[in-house]
Amino acid sequence: MTRLWYGGDYNPEQWDPAVWKEDVDLMRQAGVNLVTVGVFSWSTLEPSPGQYNFTWLDQVLDQLYDDGVSVDLATPTASPPPWFSRLHPEALPVTADGVRLTHGSRDTYCVCAPAYREAARGIARTLAERYHDHPALAMWHVHNEYGTVCYCSLAAARFREWLRERYGTLDRLNEAWTTAFWSQGYAEWTDVEPPRKTQYLVNPTQYLDFRRFWSDELLAAYLEQKTELRKVSALPITTNFVFGNWVPVNHARWAAEVDVVAIDHYPDQAGIGAEEQTAFGADLARGWAGGRPWLLMEQAAGTLNTGPRMHAKEPGRMARHSLSHIARGSQGALFFQWRASRGGAEMYHSAMVPHAGPDSRMFREITQLGSELPHLAEVAESNVVADVAILWDVECWWAMQGTHLPSSSLDYLAAVRSAHRHFWRAGVTVDFAAPTDDLASYKLVVAPSLYLVSDDAAANLTAYVENGGDLVVGYFSGIVDPDLRVRLGGYPGAFTELLGVRVEEFHPLPDDGEVVLSSGGRGRLWSEDVHAVSAEVVDRYAGGVLDGKPAITRRQIGAGMAWYVSTELDDATAARLFELPASPVETVRRRSGDTTWTFLFNHGDAEFAVRDAGELVAGELPVPAGGYAVVRSP
Amino acid sequence: MTRLWYGGDYNPEQWDPAVWKEDVDLMRQAGVNLVTVGVFSWSTLEPSPGQYNFTWLDQVLDQLYDDGVSVDLATPTASPPPWFSRLHPEALPVTADGVRLTHGSRDTYCVCAPAYREAARGIARTLAERYHDHPALAMWHVHNEYGTVCYCSLAAARFREWLRERYGTLDRLNEAWTTAFWSQGYAEWTDVEPPRKTQYLVNPTQYLDFRRFWSDELLAAYLEQKTELRKVSALPITTNFVFGNWVPVNHARWAAEVDVVAIDHYPDQAGIGAEEQTAFGADLARGWAGGRPWLLMEQAAGTLNTGPRMHAKEPGRMARHSLSHIARGSQGALFFQWRASRGGAEMYHSAMVPHAGPDSRMFREITQLGSELPHLAEVAESNVVADVAILWDVECWWAMQGTHLPSSSLDYLAAVRSAHRHFWRAGVTVDFAAPTDDLASYKLVVAPSLYLVSDDAAANLTAYVENGGDLVVGYFSGIVDPDLRVRLGGYPGAFTELLGVRVEEFHPLPDDGEVVLSSGGRGRLWSEDVHAVSAEVVDRYAGGVLDGKPAITRRQIGAGMAWYVSTELDDATAARLFELPASPVETVRRRSGDTTWTFLFNHGDAEFAVRDAGELVAGELPVPAGGYAVVRSP
Amino acid sequence: MTRLWYGGDYNPEQWDPAVWKEDVDLMRQAGVNLVTVGVFSWSTLEPSPGQYNFTWLDQVLDQLYDDGVSVDLATPTASPPPWFSRLHPEALPVTADGVRLTHGSRDTYCVCAPAYREAARGIARTLAERYHDHPALAMWHVHNEYGTVCYCSLAAARFREWLRERYGTLDRLNEAWTTAFWSQGYAEWTDVEPPRKTQYLVNPTQYLDFRRFWSDELLAAYLEQKTELRKVSALPITTNFVFGNWVPVNHARWAAEVDVVAIDHYPDQAGIGAEEQTAFGADLARGWAGGRPWLLMEQAAGTLNTGPRMHAKEPGRMARHSLSHIARGSQGALFFQWRASRGGAEMYHSAMVPHAGPDSRMFREITQLGSELPHLAEVAESNVVADVAILWDVECWWAMQGTHLPSSSLDYLAAVRSAHRHFWRAGVTVDFAAPTDDLASYKLVVAPSLYLVSDDAAANLTAYVENGGDLVVGYFSGIVDPDLRVRLGGYPGAFTELLGVRVEEFHPLPDDGEVVLSSGGRGRLWSEDVHAVSAEVVDRYAGGVLDGKPAITRRQIGAGMAWYVSTELDDATAARLFELPASPVETVRRRSGDTTWTFLFNHGDAEFAVRDAGELVAGELPVPAGGYAVVRSP
Repeated sequence: MTRLWYGGDYNPEQWDPAVWKEDVDLMRQAGVNLVTVGVFSWSTLEPSPGQYNFTWLDQVLDQLYDDGVSVDLATPTASPPPWFSRLHPEALPVTADGVRLTHGSRDTYCVCAPAYREAARGIARTLAERYHDHPALAMWHVHNEYGTVCYCSLAAARFREWLRERYGTLDRLNEAWTTAFWSQGYAEWTDVEPPRKTQYLVNPTQYLDFRRFWSDELLAAYLEQKTELRKVSALPITTNFVFGNWVPVNHARWAAEVDVVAIDHYPDQAGIGAEEQTAFGADLARGWAGGRPWLLMEQAAGTLNTGPRMHAKEPGRMARHSLSHIARGSQGALFFQWRASRGGAEMYHSAMVPHAGPDSRMFREITQLGSELPHLAEVAESNVVADVAILWDVECWWAMQGTHLPSSSLDYLAAVRSAHRHFWRAGVTVDFAAPTDDLASYKLVVAPSLYLVSDDAAANLTAYVENGGDLVVGYFSGIVDPDLRVRLGGYPGAFTELLGVRVEEFHPLPDDGEVVLSSGGRGRLWSEDVHAVSAEVVDRYAGGVLDGKPAITRRQIGAGMAWYVSTELDDATAARLFELPASPVETVRRRSGDTTWTFLFNHGDAEFAVRDAGELVAGELPVPAGGYAVVRSP
Repeated sequence: MTRLWYGGDYNPEQWDPAVWKEDVDLMRQAGVNLVTVGVFSWSTLEPSPGQYNFTWLDQVLDQLYDDGVSVDLATPTASPPPWFSRLHPEALPVTADGVRLTHGSRDTYCVCAPAYREAARGIARTLAERYHDHPALAMWHVHNEYGTVCYCSLAAARFREWLRERYGTLDRLNEAWTTAFWSQGYAEWTDVEPPRKTQYLVNPTQYLDFRRFWSDELLAAYLEQKTELRKVSALPITTNFVFGNWVPVNHARWAAEVDVVAIDHYPDQAGIGAEEQTAFGADLARGWAGGRPWLLMEQAAGTLNTGPRMHAKEPGRMARHSLSHIARGSQGALFFQWRASRGGAEMYHSAMVPHAGPDSRMFREITQLGSELPHLAEVAESNVVADVAILWDVECWWAMQGTHLPSSSLDYLAAVRSAHRHFWRAGVTVDFAAPTDDLASYKLVVAPSLYLVSDDAAANLTAYVENGGDLVVGYFSGIVDPDLRVRLGGYPGAFTELLGVRVEEFHPLPDDGEVVLSSGGRGRLWSEDVHAVSAEVVDRYAGGVLDGKPAITRRQIGAGMAWYVSTELDDATAARLFELPASPVETVRRRSGDTTWTFLFNHGDAEFAVRDAGELVAGELPVPAGGYAVVRSP
Repeated sequence: MTRLWYGGDYNPEQWDPAVWKEDVDLMRQAGVNLVTVGVFSWSTLEPSPGQYNFTWLDQVLDQLYDDGVSVDLATPTASPPPWFSRLHPEALPVTADGVRLTHGSRDTYCVCAPAYREAARGIARTLAERYHDHPALAMWHVHNEYGTVCYCSLAAARFREWLRERYGTLDRLNEAWTTAFWSQGYAEWTDVEPPRKTQYLVNPTQYLDFRRFWSDELLAAYLEQKTELRKVSALPITTNFVFGNWVPVNHARWAAEVDVVAIDHYPDQAGIGAEEQTAFGADLARGWAGGRPWLLMEQAAGTLNTGPRMHAKEPGRMARHSLSHIARGSQGALFFQWRASRGGAEMYHSAMVPHAGPDSRMFREITQLGSELPHLAEVAESNVVADVAILWDVECWWAMQGTHLPSSSLDYLAAVRSAHRHFWRAGVTVDFAAPTDDLASYKLVVAPSLYLVSDDAAANLTAYVENGGDLVVGYFSGIVDPDLRVRLGGYPGAFTELLGVRVEEFHPLPDDGEVVLSSGGRGRLWSEDVHAVSAEVVDRYAGGVLDGKPAITRRQIGAGMAWYVSTELDDATAARLFELPASPVETVRRRSGDTTWTFLFNHGDAEFAVRDAGELVAGELPVPAGGYAVVRSP
């Protein structure tokens, strides 16, 4: 059956059973067809060690089934109960400066503690055995937003095992970590520690490896639970990916281990920024999913959390965000959470049923959207169409976060988001791809600040150009290898030959500074002393210390073209470079066989008439300001 | 004998005995009649464990008595000597992230450590037994500025006892703390911990209870000392309340346990802000004292500490502040401290006798004020007259400090200060009252951001209106019950019926944003999507997402009126709403029997002629710019 | 042989031996004659406990000798290897809040740990015995940038020993620390602790003594290594001084224990600020060296690290900075480092041979400078000529850093730099001197914010004026004695009589505030209520609360003059006061016998024709914008 999932996290354990009946009635009213149950229910399911209470969950699942709501059943391992900390104090996480944290929040565990791992497997197995054949079940949801790291001695021991696996010998580790600098040469494996608080700057490769290790260690914990579930159930198994200004795991690698890529998405800007972030997050999710459909597991119904304060979503905005995700490949729109909590740390987190209750604009909009989605059900298995790819490699980001860089304003995420924004503003859909992916299907590939690059990735990109592709490499790319060792002889190291340029020096700009280009364009943040060795100069720095030096170059290789952009272009300059006119309407297409669904989002302040919206649309299709339309062809 | 106290903290142990003689001579010259002795004298009184040195104190008290200066004798328990930390390392306080603090400052103890409590009782008893019949004694001063909290295991144990007392059962605690959220359900009392550093957001009710607990625990420690003193002495016993941006205890509750409410007051603004803060602090003290006279125990003679720097008080300002406190009910004006320290952490704290010595403007102003106060002695036992009350509940503040709110700019203290300022600018005196107080005597009661409200308090306010009172409820009121659980069905929860409004959504404003009202008024910080259910709309939002929706409403109930103000009004808009014309002259009246003393403070830049200053004043009374006058009637 | 040293830190252990050959070839090409080897080589020299590897160092030293490059051989004690932390965990340093740091950076040791001290002596002895007669050796370099402090119990024990030595009795310590304040009286030596994290403000004298202690303790560690080296070698021994916004040791005292004062210098401003900082740092180094030549041990070749980002030095700037140091007494120009690291925490630190390799502007400029320096070789032993001295006492700075001052904007370093800038802008060379130095040779002595002053220093300055000198004392001077106890009776305590003024009150200014003087001049940051007792008023405050009060005074004493400046003058006002016209050209003279070398630096934007550049220069000497010239006379 093809359908779009609609619903959210459901936490009946926070409410009296009297509320449960109202819940299912309202769910039916709202068109909800999937709820995630049990994410933080461990202390309710197992209130004291070994004593289980399944009565409430039995009842809830039965009731949901009776009312036609499917269940994404979660293992509750993201928050062990307080008694667990008492029995296993060694499993409490420790910060880099040695503070052992206490329960009273969530995620109070170290995944490296054997007691935690055993308990997690145990509760997963218990749930699986009890509920695997419950007819309400549609999906398994392992844990929640994996990402808690720890610096305790158990983590240190696991880190050393991981390093042994990666490097084999200490000599190799010493080389990779450049331990000859600052007398860090390791004589025994046991001397290697996590990057705890140090006297001064930490070793950047040690930092990077610690992040790699944690991604792998958390993945191992996930896989153990998956194994338990798979033993008794053939249903899809997933875990929800979290993405913010700190990303704990390598989602691109994890994607191979989930049956469906699921993400939580919370924009942190109001205004147009939230639309752009939504597009970015959804495109990234599709990239992790290898272009296949994926699932928006969590979003907030009513508010955008802009950091210091929450911004109430304007009328229609919740639906537009939901559609924007679906346009980009999501198989539905789910929320955290169904009913707003009346207590606890997130009591002001918005919900499908707000504190005010169902007699509210919020719930009316939820109900409206729920009535629309079934008409789009057939898109669920279709794919998104894109000719442009932007490269994404979380290791670049981690590498830049752990290194004392020439400018603290260098920011991998910002560089990638900026590139994505250039295309998004023009209504052009882009994919995200890994640097080692097969890129042959793309007309254009953009590599913003691809700081860390392996030999394989560099060769892959070279081959892509040699085979006729257009590649745009951004500033501060190709600098280091996977050991975080500089590629010598001139920047951008791995790409000097491909691009035909050689950079001697970096010229970071002040945060409020800019460089002017001879074309009239402008750059921010960064500039470089570029020598065009075998490249053609497209644009030059005008004025300042780099006056007359190349700023943008290109080098033709057969039918392919390799561009270098040595500064952070402002939107207008980038639009000119990529020949991208700004458009108030964003267009995204999903295709399956001969059928195309065209999603049109008007982010402007006025109605916009879209030409050629589809074969079945005669003349122009007007899309209202802030509105959207979906057109099926044929 | 009716008199106003005048003097300050006196620390002879910091000086050679040669200085003591000069001290009493200068005190007589300055009209000093009370000094607080011994606040931080423990290591001088008991230089090593069990070895006491009272010689100096005997001599100082005798000398003060000989010169007619009374003594407020302090127990020195706010700073145990270094040897105490050596003998009782478990009594050193521990921070939320587990750092055990070291002595070398002040307040280095955990009140939950039995060794500390025993030592504190012991030194109090020893002092009481030795000095209870010394003729210089006028008052006992327990400790200093109670407020040191701790997260150690001893504190944890006491916290659990307090929780057992409050909740009886774990089931009740689990409900109150909404532990079903994030799997925090407690199975054993021993699992409950202080809100130490956690992985993510702490449980807000746990946080609030921890603040409540500390207020009670510190009060218990105070009461133990009070008991020791009372055994042998019938003199008044007090402790000085400290109030700043972080308030450690529930002064309204503590007030019942002191014989006179005593406060320390240090404005942190220069300019007119310091005058306003003085009025606010003094009105609050009178509120804690239930309207009875109270005592300004500490102020700075010469400077306003504005955070990054000290601001020298302008000529006359010290006297004006002193009179402002007395006008509002203080029985005197005391200072920290008599003589400026020549070393130590507060050596630049100003004093009655500055580093420059008595040949100084500072000391001359002190002497001048000392010569004036005896003329006002008869006001000491009179009461202040006010028709308006503002509600103050420190638990609202604590609740808002511990919760992840919809806007980090929500600030209970700021909201209450803002309401106070509206009246202060018009020269109108207001009382502070608790939400459960009998309010019948007031014409108008204002409840700014009364976030947390008990059923009893809500009923009390409803009865107040039903009995003909005018009540103004501010935005973000009535939201949660004392367990910090949201009152469902629409905000402002506890007051929806009384006010006849229902709010579905909050619309926090950016810090630099504002909303315009249809009256032309303006609001800041916050707005709400208000539905007038049975209320009359007084003013509406004009423009923006809430255009046309109610901003200010009122609902008539018999002779009473219940207003709702859903945004933070600017001063001009509030003045219009409350019909308060701005006045450069602040007027405060104290009354005893048929006699009224009218205090007039001119905060303007020009002389102001006050009409109707009193029966005995013919025509207008000119008050000079920055000056004051006191008029007795009849 | 007279020559200027040229070269830098050389870390061959980070590179394949294949690179070493290229290194010496390039060194010869660049004119390098000294490299510092071994600074962080411990883990390479002793990869596991007691197992040494000298092969590489033997080879490197031989090769350098063969190519005529001298060696400054370092002891590697600034970074013990990881195995050392394993064997001696008690030697890991501990922060003020109790965090025990981990290796993985540099400087991971506590100098107070006996195990560390023994190991440091041992590796120094081993190196000395092996290499003392190697012909490449020119100098010994002990450790690196001494400055790591620690709060562990071993440090506490050493601190107590130091305090016993300083104070003899606890009574004296209690007096010096004013422990009667806040009940800090010590009954046993064992109760005294480092100024670890406390409940509130720390004792300022305890803080100051801890800084004094650490300077002495680190010096003791240095001296132990020096003793080992001296046993077998007569070569000069030094250690490189580090100076930034936090200065760990008393360089003026340390200078007596090094054979040549050596400094590392890293300006943190771009633009003209870097020139000014260079002059300041070099003048300070010469002051520590007692006017004798000294050595610039480290600078960055290519970048200025302005905190958030690196600024690429403009063409010619590296040479100008190098010459600026040499003009002010340096015996050469050395860099960190020879070849940019390809990995590790400082991989983006610029170097003589950058990542781009020798085919680079950087290396060409290095080579150019290397070819020029031999022509200046004869200046190496000459002295700098100055008629003006500014007083520098690091204890003033420490005292101000550890005290809760009347304004957090009071900043000793800033005040001294400001005074230095006034003269530097006029092209006038100044010396730095200690307050107790013989100052007879100077026409003018300036004492900016000499907050802490001993009786001896005050007497020395008085004698200087009495003997005909001109002394300018800045605001916030003379306030405290070396125990940090206020000198009573009026500020500026130690100088009231000499200056003939008495200050009652401080009037700190807001950061964006200023005071106007009756002369039209302006002051910032600070003002004081000055009474001219026996001084002549030179300038007065105009407007504001101090309107008409003295701002600048002077008092004639025979031929001498004692000035007081009670605010922070802006540049123009100071220039007028000191009669210093601004000049785009900075002039510095070194003299030896009858020969004078005049260094001229044009910091302006246009060529400047210098008159009277030297006897041998007829007419005017044009110095290009941003350029320099050196003129020999006769």
